[in-house]
Order: sequence, then C-alpha cells, then structure tokens
Amino acid sequence: MFRPHFKTHQSEVIANLFRNEGIFCITVSSFRMAEEFALQGWHDITVAFPVNILEIALLNKLTSKITLNLTVESEEVVDFLNHHLKQVVSVWIKIDTGYHRTGIPSTDDKAISKLIETISKSRFINFLGFLVHSGHSYQADGKNELELIHQQTLTQLQQLKSKYSSLFPNLKVSIGDTPTCSTMDSFEGVDEIRPGNFVFYDAAQLFIGSCQLSQIAAFMACPVVAKHAERSELVLYGGAVHFSKDSFQHPTFGTCYGLMVEFTKQGFELIPGCYVKSLSQEHGILVVTKEFLKEKNPGDIVYVIPSHSCLTANLMKNDTRFI
Amino acid sequence: MFRPHFKTHQSEVIANLFRNEGIFCITVSSFRMAEEFALQGWHDITVAFPVNILEIALLNKLTSKITLNLTVESEEVVDFLNHHLKQVVSVWIKIDTGYHRTGIPSTDDKAISKLIETISKSRFINFLGFLVHSGHSYQADGKNELELIHQQTLTQLQQLKSKYSSLFPNLKVSIGDTPTCSTMDSFEGVDEIRPGNFVFYDAAQLFIGSCQLSQIAAFMACPVVAKHAERSELVLYGGAVHFSKDSFQHPTFGTCYGLMVEFTKQGFELIPGCYVKSLSQEHGILVVTKEFLKEKNPGDIVYVIPSHSCLTANLMKNDTRFI
Repeated sequence: MFRPHFKTHQSEVIANLFRNEGIFCITVSSFRMAEEFALQGWHDITVAFPVNILEIALLNKLTSKITLNLTVESEEVVDFLNHHLKQVVSVWIKIDTGYHRTGIPSTDDKAISKLIETISKSRFINFLGFLVHSGHSYQADGKNELELIHQQTLTQLQQLKSKYSSLFPNLKVSIGDTPTCSTMDSFEGVDEIRPGNFVFYDAAQLFIGSCQLSQIAAFMACPVVAKHAERSELVLYGGAVHFSKDSFQHPTFGTCYGLMVEFTKQGFELIPGCYVKSLSQEHGILVVTKEFLKEKNPGDIVYVIPSHSCLTANLMKNDTRFI
Repeated sequence: MFRPHFKTHQSEVIANLFRNEGIFCITVSSFRMAEEFALQGWHDITVAFPVNILEIALLNKLTSKITLNLTVESEEVVDFLNHHLKQVVSVWIKIDTGYHRTGIPSTDDKAISKLIETISKSRFINFLGFLVHSGHSYQADGKNELELIHQQTLTQLQQLKSKYSSLFPNLKVSIGDTPTCSTMDSFEGVDEIRPGNFVFYDAAQLFIGSCQLSQIAAFMACPVVAKHAERSELVLYGGAVHFSKDSFQHPTFGTCYGLMVEFTKQGFELIPGCYVKSLSQEHGILVVTKEFLKEKNPGDIVYVIPSHSCLTANLMKNDTRFI
C-alpha cells in the first residue's frame, strides 16, 4: 500500500493530484495537519509522529470524523489513550531500526512485547503493526550504503513480523523514507510505504541519489536585490524565513543551502558553479560564475532548488504557484 | 535615535509596548512587514533590506500613506526608483564595514560618490546617509572582539561622515546589530541604532555575551512525546517547523539548537547538561541529564530557549502567548 506523506507539500492542490490517481489514505506529521486534510475530505490518515497526549481533545475530535491511525512507543501514552479515547483508534508501534531519533529499538523484545500486551488489553486501541522511518538513509553516502540501510531495515522488520504474526495474523509493517523508497526494488515483507519528499525532491535528495535532476519539482523564484562583482555573489531576496535553514554537504561547494537552475525549452538545468552559500533572515547569498554575474542585475529573478523542500514548502505554502 | 527592528517579533502586542514608551519610528526587513505595521498605525518605517524593485507597486502604495525610508546600494536600483516612484522617499546607502553580506565597501569611494551623485540628481529621492549592519559581531568570540568590530565600524562611518558632511550637513549614520548595541558604551558619531533581537535575545546571543540569562524573553513550550533512557534523550514536539533550523556552537555541547530552562519563583534557570542536539521537521531531540530524565514523561512540557529567536518568532507568531 502507498500512503504518501503530505507533510512535504501540505497543499490541497497537490493532495487532489493524488486523489485523482486513486490515493485515499495519507500520512501527516501532526494532528493539526490531520485536521486540515480531514476538512479537505481525507478520511484515512496516519499521524506518523509520537502522540502528543496534550492534544487529546483534538485527537478525539478527529476520531469522531475520520479513521485516524496513531504512532505509539510507550506504556504511558497507551495507558493515557486507553483512559481518554472516546472512539476506537488503530496504532502502529514505532520501531527504531538504526536512525536513533525515536522508536523502540527493534531488538528490544521486552519493551515491544510489553507494549503489544498493553495495547491488546485496551478497549479502544487496535494494534496495526510496526512503523519505521529509516531517516539515516538521508545521510547515506551512495547507493551501496542506501542498499545496506534498506536491507537492515527489512531484516529487522521481517524478524518482528514473523515473531508476532502468529498472535496477530494481520500484523503489518510500514516504512517511510524517500531515499530507499525511491531507489530500491525489493520491499519483501513490507505492507505499506509512506514517502513524502519524493513529490518535490530537492537538492539534498539529488546528492543522496534519490532522484534525477529532471524529477525535481519545487523551485524558489528569488529576486536579485544586489550584486557583488568583486566576490562574484548575488544577494537574493530569499532567506531563512523563505527557505528555512537546512543545508547539505555538496562535494564541491561544501555547506550548501540551494542550487541554481535555469529554465530552457527542454526543462531546466543546473548552472555549474552556482550555489546558495548562506542564508540570514531575508537574505540569501548566491555564489555565481563571472559569466553568470554579468547577465544578472537587481530585479532579475533566479531559480533555486532548495536544500530541503519540506521545510521550504512549509514556509512558502501561502505563496506557491503551480505551473 | 532608537529605531528598533521589528522583524524579530513581528507582533502587534510587542509593537504597542514600544509605542507606549514613546517609540514611533521603526525598522522592518520587507515591504510586506512594512505594510502590516503601517496598518497598525506605524507611520515612519525604514526597510533595512536592499530594495526589491519587483515590489514597486507595493512600495508606491506604502509611500502614499507613510514615511518610508529605503536602503539602496546600486545605480540600477536608484535609476529604477527615479523612474517609477510616485512620491518622495528617503534612502540610506547600505555600507559594508566588514560583514561582507551586502552593501558597498566603506573604502569604495568611487562607488559611494557616484551613487550619492545619482541620488542627488533624482527628483524623488532624498539622501539620508549611511546605514550598516555589522553582522560579523554575531560571530565574535568574546567582548574584546566585539569591541574591535564596533570600533572598526565607528571609524569607517566617521570617515564617511566627515567626507560627505560638507555637501550634506544633515547626513546621518545608522547601525544595527544587537551584540554591539547591547554591550558597547560609546556610539560617537552614530545618529541612529536599529537593534531588533534584544527584545527577546536567545541562546546564541547569550553565548556571544550580548545579554544575561535573565534578559532572555522568548521560550518554546515543547511537549515531551517520547523518552529514551538508554541515551538520556527526550523527544520533543518542537522541530524545524517551529524553531527554524539555526544553531550555534556551544563551548561544551557543540552544535546546539536550544537550551533548556526551568521556571522557578525567582524567574528561570538553565538546566546544566541539557540542550537540543538536533531538529527534524517536527521532532526536537533534547539531551538531558539522568536526573532530569527521571522527572519527565510524555505529556510534560519543557521550556527551551531557541538558538535564534527571530526565526523562531517568525514561525510561531500565530501561536505565541504573552506572559
């Protein structure tokens, strides 16, 4: 099953493109986002973020209207839900397969078994299976490393599945990172994928190898506001309040906040030697070639592929043009 | 003259605190922000960002209603303004005194003289003087270095002032960074200061030495959503979409996105050994002491001083509580 993550775009227009393709089940990263998409007619939503129990009122409001799938990883939260839920919800247990951001380590049999037991005893909580985000794939150095991360994730999930499937024959496993979902062929034993970033991709994903340049679909149109010939830089009206402030390590440029493209009749191409080297609140500093510098002046627009499209889209969602 | 930068808070509530103290002239970083504050009754606004000529329609709309002071640094932009402005505006020439983000280098006599000449010939543009943001003070390593940066800025501005004041007896100079405005005593020859961040300060400013801990006035209230005892970490509902993704180098912790505090009867205090080590879209990873770990569980709230309050406030402006 394909349950795309909508946190990347948070857009009704793009959501409708998915709906037109027959997608009706989605992933989001907060209850607020679930509420927005519920209002837009999405009725089966997984919140792939550990439940914030302080939002129980919103959670109960949502469960009265849509099928809401939650992510849990602790006894305390399951106990709390059991006492405060007003409708049945389904939950995934969040498993850590090596990213070490959050989730129960896949090897922690004791914690997993105990949590499943608590869930099973609950009147209001239905156990779905195991959910993983192998976000360490974002740091992978080439396809071999991606493959290794993917295999390790699959192995861990298959072990969990075989261990618990006698008790829970419908138990499912769900994975979600864009790099492996974009590049791997085998998803043996995986019941659901939840990639999000693939809808736009971005400069960081290009260098991980998740996508081809031509698959990138989000650009920032940045007005040039100043020109510094002596250091071959353009100052852009495009800063941390537009791009957010995520960077990736480019093999040549080092810390890079975005890459410059030009649109051609065939599509668009990267302009070699041009990159966003720093961002402050409203300013972006674009390093350009001498040749390119000559062509551009204040008032011209340059197009930048952001380092991280999810964070950029979150900031620009009210200023987006669809072309 | 004190002309505080309102980009830090972008808040009507805080703006009114300034107005109650007799402040009527402000700084912002975009025409949109100028428009918002103009609607709130602010009538003398400097946009301390190089003019984006693509916003000429908004610029003309604003100049018909308020006193708008612009920042320019190139012939092209002044020429454009001269042809498209519908009302008189005043302009500052942006000078670079060492930050090297933007502005004309203070030593570039030729460019400065030529730009002043072009401005002087313009029907619609009134020359105010020289404006500087010595943002390299944010990288200063201690008070001595801050002092050096400040002195260098003052010297460069005094030289410019003495050079052009015979032609322009009312010529002014304006400086704007929070670190030097907060810590220096002498502002000889400076006519205006435009700090912004001081209204909240933040963790980065604390480590530059711009402020005392007790002067910090912006905190993020982050729900704990998961607990990882084996690595002494709490997962917070507080990520890059809440904090933005700016960090500073902490002497002990290294890359740091925020520091944890606890409120006491006397105010608040830093919790030693606790810091936000990473942020993803919605997750913040808070490293805590073993002792502190025991006390906190999912559903508890922890308070974090952001690394960079301006970017955090920009994201949280609709979710701010004033206490």
